[in-house]
Amino acid sequence: MLEAREAVRNLPTYHPPLGGRDGLRLDFNENTVGCSPRVLARLQKITAEEIACYPEREPIEAIVADFLGINSNELLLTNGVDEAIHLLCETFLQAGDEALIAVPTFAMYEISAAATGARVITVPTGADFQFPAADLLSQVTPRTRLIAIANPNNPTGSVAEPARLLEIARHVPQAAILVDEAYFEFYGQTLLAQWRSIPNLFVARTFSKAYGLAGLRVGVLTGNAVHISMVSKVSSPYNVNGVALACLPTALADQNYVKQYVSQIRQGREELQHEFAGWSVRYWPSQANFVLASFGLLKTPFIQSMRSRGILVRDRSRDYGCEGCVRITLGNTEQTARLLQALRETLAELGVKEVIAK
Amino acid sequence: MLEAREAVRNLPTYHPPLGGRDGLRLDFNENTVGCSPRVLARLQKITAEEIACYPEREPIEAIVADFLGINSNELLLTNGVDEAIHLLCETFLQAGDEALIAVPTFAMYEISAAATGARVITVPTGADFQFPAADLLSQVTPRTRLIAIANPNNPTGSVAEPARLLEIARHVPQAAILVDEAYFEFYGQTLLAQWRSIPNLFVARTFSKAYGLAGLRVGVLTGNAVHISMVSKVSSPYNVNGVALACLPTALADQNYVKQYVSQIRQGREELQHEFAGWSVRYWPSQANFVLASFGLLKTPFIQSMRSRGILVRDRSRDYGCEGCVRITLGNTEQTARLLQALRETLAELGVKEVIAK
Repeated sequence: MLEAREAVRNLPTYHPPLGGRDGLRLDFNENTVGCSPRVLARLQKITAEEIACYPEREPIEAIVADFLGINSNELLLTNGVDEAIHLLCETFLQAGDEALIAVPTFAMYEISAAATGARVITVPTGADFQFPAADLLSQVTPRTRLIAIANPNNPTGSVAEPARLLEIARHVPQAAILVDEAYFEFYGQTLLAQWRSIPNLFVARTFSKAYGLAGLRVGVLTGNAVHISMVSKVSSPYNVNGVALACLPTALADQNYVKQYVSQIRQGREELQHEFAGWSVRYWPSQANFVLASFGLLKTPFIQSMRSRGILVRDRSRDYGCEGCVRITLGNTEQTARLLQALRETLAELGVKEVIAK
Repeated sequence: MLEAREAVRNLPTYHPPLGGRDGLRLDFNENTVGCSPRVLARLQKITAEEIACYPEREPIEAIVADFLGINSNELLLTNGVDEAIHLLCETFLQAGDEALIAVPTFAMYEISAAATGARVITVPTGADFQFPAADLLSQVTPRTRLIAIANPNNPTGSVAEPARLLEIARHVPQAAILVDEAYFEFYGQTLLAQWRSIPNLFVARTFSKAYGLAGLRVGVLTGNAVHISMVSKVSSPYNVNGVALACLPTALADQNYVKQYVSQIRQGREELQHEFAGWSVRYWPSQANFVLASFGLLKTPFIQSMRSRGILVRDRSRDYGCEGCVRITLGNTEQTARLLQALRETLAELGVKEVIAK
């Protein structure tokens, strides 16, 4: 009888709570105001004939490479970063290998790594979700073939020092080191092009967050040209759709839009963290477009009360070390005002007392 | 040092000759007139906010399942059929397994199967590219875990009898049998839902051909619900982009558009085959939206001469058993007239003499 491979049978099902998302969507770390109007205008110019044609990735890869200041052969456009993770695991991992991830983190590293039959070793982050560089290194064996790190991390918003990440990459030359910079624009530090001296380092970027193109599915995997050529082999030549390819140059050209949005997110992040401090709600300082906060036993009523005020936030309490935690995505200035208003009402309703911060 | 898995290092690079495709594109089996105008209108209504949201696959899967007359859990929407093939291989194949394919056929079966580390055994088709059912069965071993068959086949346009395919699926219950019906609409016979009695059978469909949505990247993998749930586990929940999901119900609703187009393709197919017969050009009767023909030593001048007349056709001479062969995609009535005119001029120019057919 036909049966899926054991590694696949043992995989968890990742089923994000999409559906019924009416309200202000502060639950999926998306861009909350939508893509640039220029991108929308470009999309509306797509012809019926273009839709019918197989997408041509390479000319757009050249444009993205130019924007990033790297060579075309150091990059692969992917069907979101999810596919970059998937292909990277498939290229380098097999049964008998080991993959290291620091938890809590983005779910797809574990799923894609485990799907190959490799053993996934989870290393707990330290107090306050600090990046566990030493613990991670202590788990390295000759079989370690992948270390995946989101930086900034999701769902915590915390970051690892670039020097620590480079140190790990140098210490484990037999492993692919993926630094997933999906939230780069809200943080500002990057390891891009560091693979020129540390060839086992890969950096992923996405257009799903700051650029507001989550629906179009387009990410970038960057790295050493030889390694990228291997990863490309397991990819379909048509992995990125034609609408995404048509819109991407326009999205890159409208940097003003991204900058304005990111600046509002950063401002809102300060305000939200300040608000949490005022209510003595525990939160973790974030470098991304979201903040993780702990509501303990009040977690479920908090989420429900926010929802009744038209604001969706994300329950992260099942993530490692995140009991009672909720992740709140930041929006633009007006949305942050709505968020703070609803937050104040909710916390007061739940009987939390504001104290004067500072 | 980091190195890709051996199976990946040994993979061929699949690099379709996209780029510089000015002219009448009869080279990629696309819909040559574009998607339905209603689909384009739907695409133009997409909002900036929709673009920024992660795509929600499930409601659209329910609509597609309804259209196909199957249950939602018997189907997975994929990033083109390429991804369906990729996920199927990843779910069921591993090093030590064997995959059987009849050649010549679509390139991605071999690539995705070999990427898993499985051994790919190619079984030559018979005279006139007849489906080699007996030879295929004679190659089955206890390690056979995948048999992939395009029906109609690409690049030959030939078909296997449904009874033969079901017989194979019944005889090899330990293997996933993929029947890729990408060209179903131009043929009309299907094995859809036969997995209800033969659970190791999978049927793939695409919206890239008759529906004219190649640029949007959306295919369907159908099969037994338990197997489909396993395949879904290795997929990203966001594998199909939001534009494709938004447009798909509209594409399905406009069956008139598909029917009219398909009817013109079938008419053109007859005319092209009749024309080949008149010039004594060897061709293989096709049930798809293309015809494979042999030009022997005249292959290269034929392709160049057609190109100089603004018509792109596809050199398939590197495919197994296809020396000197060219694959020509059919278009609508007007495009077929253009094709036949250019074909006559080219054949006359190359010194081929028309004989009265029949």
